[in-house]
Amino acid sequence: MIDFATAGNTSRQSASRRVATVTSLNRMEVGLFMNRREFNQGLLMAVTAGAFVSRSPQSIPQINEKRLVSHLMELAEFGKNPKGGVSRVAYSEADLQGRRYVLGLMKGAGLETRVDAAGNIVGTLTRNTSGLPPIIMGSHIDSVPEGGNYDGDVGSLGAIEVVQTLSEHQIMTRHPLHVMIFQNEEGGTIGSMAASTGLSPKQLDLVANSGKTIRDGIRYIGGDPDHLERARLALRSFAAYLELHIEQGGVLAAEKINIGVVEGIVGIRDWDVTVTGFANHAGTTPMNQRRDAMLAAARFVDAVNRVVTSVPGRQVGTVGKITALPGAYNVIPGKVVLGFELRDLDDSKIDMLYSAIHEQAQQIAKQTGTSFEFTLTNAIVPAPTDPAIREAVARSARNLGLTTRTMPSGAGHDAQEMARVGPAGMIFIPSRDGISHSPAEYSTPTDIANGSNVLLSTLLALDARP
Amino acid sequence: MIDFATAGNTSRQSASRRVATVTSLNRMEVGLFMNRREFNQGLLMAVTAGAFVSRSPQSIPQINEKRLVSHLMELAEFGKNPKGGVSRVAYSEADLQGRRYVLGLMKGAGLETRVDAAGNIVGTLTRNTSGLPPIIMGSHIDSVPEGGNYDGDVGSLGAIEVVQTLSEHQIMTRHPLHVMIFQNEEGGTIGSMAASTGLSPKQLDLVANSGKTIRDGIRYIGGDPDHLERARLALRSFAAYLELHIEQGGVLAAEKINIGVVEGIVGIRDWDVTVTGFANHAGTTPMNQRRDAMLAAARFVDAVNRVVTSVPGRQVGTVGKITALPGAYNVIPGKVVLGFELRDLDDSKIDMLYSAIHEQAQQIAKQTGTSFEFTLTNAIVPAPTDPAIREAVARSARNLGLTTRTMPSGAGHDAQEMARVGPAGMIFIPSRDGISHSPAEYSTPTDIANGSNVLLSTLLALDARP
Repeated sequence: MIDFATAGNTSRQSASRRVATVTSLNRMEVGLFMNRREFNQGLLMAVTAGAFVSRSPQSIPQINEKRLVSHLMELAEFGKNPKGGVSRVAYSEADLQGRRYVLGLMKGAGLETRVDAAGNIVGTLTRNTSGLPPIIMGSHIDSVPEGGNYDGDVGSLGAIEVVQTLSEHQIMTRHPLHVMIFQNEEGGTIGSMAASTGLSPKQLDLVANSGKTIRDGIRYIGGDPDHLERARLALRSFAAYLELHIEQGGVLAAEKINIGVVEGIVGIRDWDVTVTGFANHAGTTPMNQRRDAMLAAARFVDAVNRVVTSVPGRQVGTVGKITALPGAYNVIPGKVVLGFELRDLDDSKIDMLYSAIHEQAQQIAKQTGTSFEFTLTNAIVPAPTDPAIREAVARSARNLGLTTRTMPSGAGHDAQEMARVGPAGMIFIPSRDGISHSPAEYSTPTDIANGSNVLLSTLLALDARP
Repeated sequence: MIDFATAGNTSRQSASRRVATVTSLNRMEVGLFMNRREFNQGLLMAVTAGAFVSRSPQSIPQINEKRLVSHLMELAEFGKNPKGGVSRVAYSEADLQGRRYVLGLMKGAGLETRVDAAGNIVGTLTRNTSGLPPIIMGSHIDSVPEGGNYDGDVGSLGAIEVVQTLSEHQIMTRHPLHVMIFQNEEGGTIGSMAASTGLSPKQLDLVANSGKTIRDGIRYIGGDPDHLERARLALRSFAAYLELHIEQGGVLAAEKINIGVVEGIVGIRDWDVTVTGFANHAGTTPMNQRRDAMLAAARFVDAVNRVVTSVPGRQVGTVGKITALPGAYNVIPGKVVLGFELRDLDDSKIDMLYSAIHEQAQQIAKQTGTSFEFTLTNAIVPAPTDPAIREAVARSARNLGLTTRTMPSGAGHDAQEMARVGPAGMIFIPSRDGISHSPAEYSTPTDIANGSNVLLSTLLALDARP
């Protein structure tokens, strides 16, 4: 048993070499000379040998980049689509296959596995007797239709790789380690919501991309929708939740920065904006007698962009949907419905932007003889990450010689749900060209390994906290 | 037999009174004391009595407003919809019923009727031996889905009322009189196109609102789509085509003018405008890294309005259709397709406007990192009306004490097709609030009577030309 902490001044290079040696201790070979019980026994011995001290950056092992990338490639087979990505939507046959594959990896990494009532895969390393709350690492492996191979997968397999690396180096943490693979993240962080603040009966009736309702989907993947309360984590029942994820934006790639230290997951508010004018004949209605809902809607779209970009900050505002009625070349639209969204880390900034945009809409209404009606269709409050975790992530990255940038997550993540019930943190790695939710989604093996090493290092740093 | 020309100085008031008396000579009562042959014989006697001289305004009879309005109400029964309008789309059962009703009215007014190869109803009064080309009056009785009771109907029943009035007053015209009720005007002036410049085989395959192809529709209403050439009118084979129609715009109503003297039917060009940006995550893509097709499309819609209203004139420009892809709150649209239309009486003005709008699109493309592609999907060249007919309409209206305004027709009409093969003119009456293609479409009985009297008066004026 090697106590890594005692390896003290081993340089990162020699550590790397050692990783290469220890790597051969993969799950199959372990099986050749010791069974699970014996292996666990060995880890337990490491615990009793007093392995739990704060370690120098040089004493931290590195994950096995090749293995991790090959696992990602293996996972990519389940739901593979002709464009080179995956369509592994939650509750599909491909999802089930991917989950089986991940369960195998988790077991191989020494995790005890189960599927909770919400259908989340939970792997636990509970061989210590510290009585401390667990540290959870997690993400998801479901995809959007025609998605890519990195969103969710990197964080999921990265977390398992971290456990595998710890196991191989016989490093025991003080806190129990859990890995959670949340189900149906892409359908609205369903699994992590079930595990944190809970799902409403209405949500269970929603039809997911697979065609199944969420209720039926949970049953399909081995959960028990009738006893979802069993999947709930009590408030502050974990020491930390850590999630590695691709940025899904282009900031890190554009600025050539290795690691994003996530400040929080932005709040999101969606509105349906109904612009009502008067439908009339496009040939016979003079320009000055029109109440053109399309013209008003167009000015609104421009106003959203103008307001959102008129103040400093990283807020975003988007009009992604539009319908014009009746929708013919020769009829001035009498009604236009827009789907409009604002996101920021600060809820009061969203308030301020909305108020300014609403004011603009009133002016446009006056100019064009139309009226605007706003209906809030979705509201997610911002989820700030834990400051201590942020610091640990930043320090871990710097110790690995990686550049960092503090940034919000513009996209939603399982971490936002976990942040509502305990301290959470996120680590971002660059996404090539900022592309995600597409077969063109890509992060380099080096970036994936960097992120996983930061995850490992952060985990150990948090574990060593008094 | 009263030769109306000989009634000389009869004032309009006494003429009105006389109309009231003669009105009782409706088609049923006529049947009581003379059969069709005898009645025609009587008219022929009028011819030989030399009735064909230019008449003073006071000597012109007036149409029977009550009868005309009651005919309009009767026609409104066929395809009546719950909203108070009609859905009498071409080639529907309701269309067939309406056509049968109109055939009855035409026969009652003394017209010989037939259905031509294109399915148009043609009524003829050919009892003179002048050898002159006919004067044609016409319009249509088909409606849009959920249409109103005035568009087409007023001109169709107005024309029949004019013939009925002439018959009742035993006025024979020098030119043969034809009434043409064109089929499927709302589907793209199909019947009048068949009768003038002809239909293409491709048009015959189009599926109309009834669900039938135009070919099958023509057969359904009694035409012969295999011999459409039989329906074609030779170039300049008629002395004049006259069409009474509701304005379908709000100009006359707003300016409280009785009669619109139509300068021509505007040219129409429709384009599909495809704006290509880059679809990306609405949460993770900073505002300054977006290539937002929706923003570009919005600025284009505003630019169309700005360009069209920046020059004097009555041109109109409309964006009536829009689709944004993929169309979700959380995705910046990568593609927007707009349906855009320009109309003016002058084709070179349409060229100029298009050129300026195209230039604006290029600037917007540069600002937003998008590209614009224009595809012309429809082009109808302007159809100016005949100047002599315009003068006759204006003079006839003034002689009736009615106010007039010279104006283009922003909407398409059967007259535009007829104008391509002979001299055509149009008479507009006010549309309440400019509404058409809606159950709310309305013109007052007085306006309908005014328009029909101008039609009658213009017809006689043109008939009297040397």
